[in-house]
Amino acid sequence: MALDRLKSVADHVAGTRSPPHPFDPLSNAEIETAAHIIRREHGKIHYNAITLLEPPKKEMLKWLEDPARTPRPARIADVVAIAPGGKVYDGLVNLEEGKITKWTALEGVQPLITMEDLQVVEHICRKDPKVIEQCIISGIPKEDMHKVYCDPWTIGYDHRFGSNVRLQQALMYYRPHVDDSQYSFPLDFCPIFDADKQEIIHIDIPEVRRPLSKAKPNNYHVASIETDSGYRKDIKPINITQPDGVSFKVDGRVIDWQKWKVHVGFNYKEGIVLNNITYNDNGVIRPVFYRLSLAEMVVPYGNPEHPHQRKHAFDLGEYGGGYMSNSLTLGCDCKGAIHYLDAAFVNKAGESMTIKNAICIHEEDAGILFKHSDFRDDSVIVTRGRKLIISHIFTAANYEYCVYWIFHQDGTIQLEIKLTGILNTYAMNPGEDTKGWGTEVYPGVNAHNHQHLFCLRIDPNIDGPNNTVFQVDATQGPGDVGSFENPYGNAFFAKKTKFTTVKESISDYDGVTSRTWEMANTNKLNPYSHKPVSYKLVSREVPKLLPKEGSLVWKRAGFARHAVHVTKYSDDQLYPAGRHVPQTSGEPSRGIPEWIADGDANIENTDIVLWHTFGITHFPSPEDFPIMPAEPMTLLLRPRNFFTRNPALDVPPSYCSTPSQVAGQGAVLDAADKMSKLVVAGGEAKCCSK
Amino acid sequence: MALDRLKSVADHVAGTRSPPHPFDPLSNAEIETAAHIIRREHGKIHYNAITLLEPPKKEMLKWLEDPARTPRPARIADVVAIAPGGKVYDGLVNLEEGKITKWTALEGVQPLITMEDLQVVEHICRKDPKVIEQCIISGIPKEDMHKVYCDPWTIGYDHRFGSNVRLQQALMYYRPHVDDSQYSFPLDFCPIFDADKQEIIHIDIPEVRRPLSKAKPNNYHVASIETDSGYRKDIKPINITQPDGVSFKVDGRVIDWQKWKVHVGFNYKEGIVLNNITYNDNGVIRPVFYRLSLAEMVVPYGNPEHPHQRKHAFDLGEYGGGYMSNSLTLGCDCKGAIHYLDAAFVNKAGESMTIKNAICIHEEDAGILFKHSDFRDDSVIVTRGRKLIISHIFTAANYEYCVYWIFHQDGTIQLEIKLTGILNTYAMNPGEDTKGWGTEVYPGVNAHNHQHLFCLRIDPNIDGPNNTVFQVDATQGPGDVGSFENPYGNAFFAKKTKFTTVKESISDYDGVTSRTWEMANTNKLNPYSHKPVSYKLVSREVPKLLPKEGSLVWKRAGFARHAVHVTKYSDDQLYPAGRHVPQTSGEPSRGIPEWIADGDANIENTDIVLWHTFGITHFPSPEDFPIMPAEPMTLLLRPRNFFTRNPALDVPPSYCSTPSQVAGQGAVLDAADKMSKLVVAGGEAKCCSK
Ligand SMILES: [Co+2]
Ligand SMILES: [Co+2]
Repeated sequence: MALDRLKSVADHVAGTRSPPHPFDPLSNAEIETAAHIIRREHGKIHYNAITLLEPPKKEMLKWLEDPARTPRPARIADVVAIAPGGKVYDGLVNLEEGKITKWTALEGVQPLITMEDLQVVEHICRKDPKVIEQCIISGIPKEDMHKVYCDPWTIGYDHRFGSNVRLQQALMYYRPHVDDSQYSFPLDFCPIFDADKQEIIHIDIPEVRRPLSKAKPNNYHVASIETDSGYRKDIKPINITQPDGVSFKVDGRVIDWQKWKVHVGFNYKEGIVLNNITYNDNGVIRPVFYRLSLAEMVVPYGNPEHPHQRKHAFDLGEYGGGYMSNSLTLGCDCKGAIHYLDAAFVNKAGESMTIKNAICIHEEDAGILFKHSDFRDDSVIVTRGRKLIISHIFTAANYEYCVYWIFHQDGTIQLEIKLTGILNTYAMNPGEDTKGWGTEVYPGVNAHNHQHLFCLRIDPNIDGPNNTVFQVDATQGPGDVGSFENPYGNAFFAKKTKFTTVKESISDYDGVTSRTWEMANTNKLNPYSHKPVSYKLVSREVPKLLPKEGSLVWKRAGFARHAVHVTKYSDDQLYPAGRHVPQTSGEPSRGIPEWIADGDANIENTDIVLWHTFGITHFPSPEDFPIMPAEPMTLLLRPRNFFTRNPALDVPPSYCSTPSQVAGQGAVLDAADKMSKLVVAGGEAKCCSK
Repeated sequence: MALDRLKSVADHVAGTRSPPHPFDPLSNAEIETAAHIIRREHGKIHYNAITLLEPPKKEMLKWLEDPARTPRPARIADVVAIAPGGKVYDGLVNLEEGKITKWTALEGVQPLITMEDLQVVEHICRKDPKVIEQCIISGIPKEDMHKVYCDPWTIGYDHRFGSNVRLQQALMYYRPHVDDSQYSFPLDFCPIFDADKQEIIHIDIPEVRRPLSKAKPNNYHVASIETDSGYRKDIKPINITQPDGVSFKVDGRVIDWQKWKVHVGFNYKEGIVLNNITYNDNGVIRPVFYRLSLAEMVVPYGNPEHPHQRKHAFDLGEYGGGYMSNSLTLGCDCKGAIHYLDAAFVNKAGESMTIKNAICIHEEDAGILFKHSDFRDDSVIVTRGRKLIISHIFTAANYEYCVYWIFHQDGTIQLEIKLTGILNTYAMNPGEDTKGWGTEVYPGVNAHNHQHLFCLRIDPNIDGPNNTVFQVDATQGPGDVGSFENPYGNAFFAKKTKFTTVKESISDYDGVTSRTWEMANTNKLNPYSHKPVSYKLVSREVPKLLPKEGSLVWKRAGFARHAVHVTKYSDDQLYPAGRHVPQTSGEPSRGIPEWIADGDANIENTDIVLWHTFGITHFPSPEDFPIMPAEPMTLLLRPRNFFTRNPALDVPPSYCSTPSQVAGQGAVLDAADKMSKLVVAGGEAKCCSK
């Protein structure tokens, strides 16, 4: 669990390996090649990102269809760089031709904040005389500045400073001891850091001052728990072992598991990207999704007092879910037989960096997959399920986001996100009223209300790229009780509303109708149900964006205004809040609102993307502190009318008996797990064997 | 997996065991004692149920407080019996005094349908000339009547027959071979069975006839899968072992696990009943819930054509979730180290019966409980969670319901329900239009739309019985963007609406505001947040009851009209659709609507019960057939302002390093699971060790 953001031990041996899959992230060598090519032409420059430019979809679909006879799409590096003085460049480098094919200077945009950008701010804060002055006012003597910490955040947008100067806001904390959790000691002022000048250019100071809390530290590390209460001693081990290894095969980054195939990509913004997801339906390889990823998120805070309105981090677009990824450790983050993938990035200097074990791939038992007993004779089938989990975890300053992409044997894909980590906190005075905008989770600690809103980008490929989205609402049948058409008043049906234009697709969740959205291929009907083959988005954690229409968050996070937007596919539309998110003013609103335009574009029976915003509204409570028990959130993509029968019928059952076998004709199948044991819990003298 | 509804091998040795816990279900001996006492006085009678009458809450709370010095509440058997001729009796038997203390004849009610009641119908159908005639019309020759099957259902309410005659409706099927799934061969007519006369008194015949389907059988048993496609061969075992046993202790039926204590009861209607749930908060035993159970459910079908409106089974009140419980098998239904509890019931003759292994109690790994990394130095804590699962599975004719009560270390209680089993199906002709009321899931098979609506009975005891419920809605702050109070438009807060009367508590789900309900003790404030200690109901699968106001289902299932009702506690209010559910007309509507009365009763700061209706609306698709992959549904009861900090902080971490340890001062805690293994997936030559 040491610092695993390693500089590459140069994987530079070219030509000895098979060429990368066109969806593969750039290797360390490719990243360094791109930097080398740029350096040759543009000299010393700070690299913000060097990542794969995914091949154009048209070209890629052809290659996927027939890789042997189709030219392999070119490897292109997508580069963001900042020249001395702060000028930002978007560039493209063709790695095979060794050529820069695009090099554009941008005005008034800021690329995301890297880990290196973040690291520096705290050190500068500690030495800044204005910050030191404020610390003294807070009750921290000058000689204790090494006990002052800051979580640098993107600034959101502050009209006083605009978009041209690269800024961070420093949320300030104090640690009595280096091992104390700083989140119990928030400071009340907020320095503004200029990344070009590398200095503090302003400090926001509240009218009401809130000196450093005098409460005891509130820690979760070993020494503190041992002193407080001691650890629980009554948890017996649960061992999960896979003596024969895993049930999946890995070919490069293509995972083949239980009829699923998926390419596991990764980039600095989205983290895991799943490409070309197919299901082998009795020998026919059927495409399901061309690409799935978490494309953006926003975490608006609900305290209206300046400068807290600035707290609404776009953790992906402003920091990068890939950049912030944890290096995972065996037996901690995942249990069982684990396959890891590393992630390669560029650093500021143009060297490649590796996060070891950034992606975890493993299986878990999934409980009962299906079961039925016949009440007549107790003939029964019990089949246990299995799931494949592709996960990564990223740390966004105080918060942790654990992202699990889960494949099920019944054709379902599930996205589960666990929120853990630590609440963002602000100082409060003894007896101060939080006014409902936050909760005092510990004396002197105000944890503000906030939302975690994620944008899932779904690029469906339901038996081909031409798909149509239907909104589905459980709806009462027409006619009152006693009417001819509904005499008993019990009629209900799935009302399907077809989205023909982008405008029509802008829709919200409706809990009353259990609203779902179906991505369908209307060109292909299920032979039994005569309904279009489809995958249904089932998502129940879909709060409204609470910042009001016209507010800064509403303007900047256009994607979060509605639960679903459907757009026509375009290669360059990946990031729903825009390509460069920090310090956007929201005027115009980047990303989805731009792409919607007049909303008249046709989205029926064509190549489309469905953008889904979901998440939770978090009103903190003391239980969430000093470190928060994981809060899970989940959504499903389920096949509906896609298969002609339960596609998991051929998963071997644990036990199966038919009526004739129960009657004594033929042996039942008993493949029940022989590892499970009856236990005599609590030391009773009697054994409870069946 | 043999037929495990065993007659008791008389556990009649009295006096040698310690007396039962007052919440313990009646033992086999107690059941037979009750039957014996009744037989003595009333002669031969058919027993419908003999179950524990739980002690009055007032008396029980006193006993729980100080069991050593409080008189033990009496053991009372609650009896339902049917005399020859059909007269129904409700009785009470004091087992200690050997006395019948209540014996009341009831008019116009029908107690639930037992397994014995169900079993007989099929045999009578096969011999009935009118049924044989209809089978012949359907294309089944007389000599094939042994291939005709029926799932007997309660009749709902049919005004032609009323409530005085005990009825079942027989949903008819055919099996070409005894091992074929009958649900692919539904027949189109519906005999009505009179349980008193033990004969078919009527057959409902549709205007449009639908002869027996000529499609091939559609099976899921071993022989058919082996013939069709063969089984998947690439699933490697996952072994879950607990070499040191389980982490819970069992004292009778009281389970003690990770600071939780809970008494696990069971009855024929609700199945698992959890009583007196407490949490040990640093040595203080704090009551959380007095009683939790699934108290009722209703499954309305949405096809308006006669007689399908009758399909709206109340699976608990009309059949009994306990009576229909499966006998569970090691390594099939649960994995790991398992503790089972049996269930004892009475049969028609007054003998006691046992379902072996009706309740499964086991632990599972619960993934990451909490995690945080400091981005400065990668100091980190990762703690894995554990959960305790108390589960049972019941088979309601075609459907299976798997019910999991899950306790978490962070103070959360989760209820998960998995729906599996087989769709209820009806016949359709080739080319027939389902009109949107169902889906053709296989040729000739129409699976009708339906809802599964469960009613969770929550008897909160949040630091004592006097509790208050608040509805909580995530709400935008007042003031437009630019206003004084909300200058940035970002303000939002948790709007809490206190329920002071029953009327006010009648509430629906609101997905837009992520509505939750808090059960609070307003007499006790959290010392940090100054908010009342509470548990929050977080439930997101809350569809509207789709049968219309005034419809039969709406009248009979009053509880399902709204997501939440809160009533004042009363010992006799356990069953939200009434004590005897079959053939109620809904006029008056039994259960909750009766208890609401004028709705003026005070429910503030008093002993209350919260009734929560949740579930899913199910529009079938071919993927659900011929056996349905489990569809999960979940809800949480989460502590909010109940604890002063994360109560799971003392769960030993897998890995913990502090900043000073990262800097080399002192050893980090590395307790990571050493059983997990890196794998070389796909046979690559390189090992991916970290
Ligand atoms: Co949060
Ligand atoms: Co269903």
